[in-house]
Amino acid sequence: MSNFGFLHLRVVNPYPVAFREARSAVGASALLARAEEYKSVAEAVADCALVIGTTAIHHRELHHPLRRLEQGARLIRKQLGSSRVALLFGSEKRGLSNEDLSHCHWLMRVPTCEEHLSMNLGQAVAVCLYELVRDPKAVWPIGKAKPATADKIERITVALLGVLRTSGYMKTPSAAPLEQKVRRLVRRLQLQADDAEVWLGMLRQVLWKVRSGK
Amino acid sequence: MSNFGFLHLRVVNPYPVAFREARSAVGASALLARAEEYKSVAEAVADCALVIGTTAIHHRELHHPLRRLEQGARLIRKQLGSSRVALLFGSEKRGLSNEDLSHCHWLMRVPTCEEHLSMNLGQAVAVCLYELVRDPKAVWPIGKAKPATADKIERITVALLGVLRTSGYMKTPSAAPLEQKVRRLVRRLQLQADDAEVWLGMLRQVLWKVRSGK
Repeated sequence: MSNFGFLHLRVVNPYPVAFREARSAVGASALLARAEEYKSVAEAVADCALVIGTTAIHHRELHHPLRRLEQGARLIRKQLGSSRVALLFGSEKRGLSNEDLSHCHWLMRVPTCEEHLSMNLGQAVAVCLYELVRDPKAVWPIGKAKPATADKIERITVALLGVLRTSGYMKTPSAAPLEQKVRRLVRRLQLQADDAEVWLGMLRQVLWKVRSGK
Repeated sequence: MSNFGFLHLRVVNPYPVAFREARSAVGASALLARAEEYKSVAEAVADCALVIGTTAIHHRELHHPLRRLEQGARLIRKQLGSSRVALLFGSEKRGLSNEDLSHCHWLMRVPTCEEHLSMNLGQAVAVCLYELVRDPKAVWPIGKAKPATADKIERITVALLGVLRTSGYMKTPSAAPLEQKVRRLVRRLQLQADDAEVWLGMLRQVLWKVRSGK
């Protein structure tokens, strides 16, 4: 919850020992300390305009519309702007009871495999809350790599050709087609400016070595 | 992993006791039994065409491009069609080392809050794999509710008006504006066919009761 910025944990009839001894992850202790205890689902969701139950099953006997997380989250996000939304999770063992579900407007399910439907509670919560905050348009400023200039690329090419000729990889000094092939090969590397400098230094050292070793 | 259909777990230098005694969730024991052990990251990712490291930090000193999960997953999905992709997770305590990261093409981060960046390992894995399989276009056949017909809605309206008049909520029998208000009120309920039948039954019972009680 804390990872994704959700701060209001409400628990209904928690098992006292487990709840009292619950230790939070680093950085989330305040959230756990502020958690509110309720006697019933009705009290816990009283101030919410939308109540969504989560379920691992998807058999036909459900008395509620069932939505995949991807669609459900869209509807929840719309509502979140104007009113409180409760997202209900059942106990790890038994999930939500029919009585719990009767307080829900609709149900939501994480799209898990037919072969392994039921999720770990903490993982299910994390996945649901992630879906609520995910933003495909948000981009971090990825340090834009400056591409190497053409003259630097050509100096690398020349150095490489020198190494290839001196080391005997290219037999005839005037093999234009092979030279062009190498030239295109170097361009396809799409070298960054900083990296190009390093490559040039390496190639010059190698060139010196192969020439001096003749 | 098993929840989202990912079946190939590879572990690098696991802590022997923990790994031997690791118990899987119900339904995932086969996955754990098939897990492959490797001595180094290089060996573990040898047959992969794309290697992505995951990280909780996003300071500037990273020597790799860093992508948010939403964007990173798109790139991974493209590659998955044609070749193997490795998604690297570090240990819960220390994450991936610089040596581990040097085997990666780029890094990916779950978009967690500035106040609580670091995630629980199991939750981080679940969120990343969910993002890889999520499909906003996939829709489950939500039992299309048949809307109630206009005549049924009108019979409900008439019954409700009868109850309101008999019970004294509507004082003058000919209060047309109020009648119209109730009519619109009932239409806004967007009743389903099955539910309309139930409402009508309930209203008729109430109407009988309030009339007989006069």
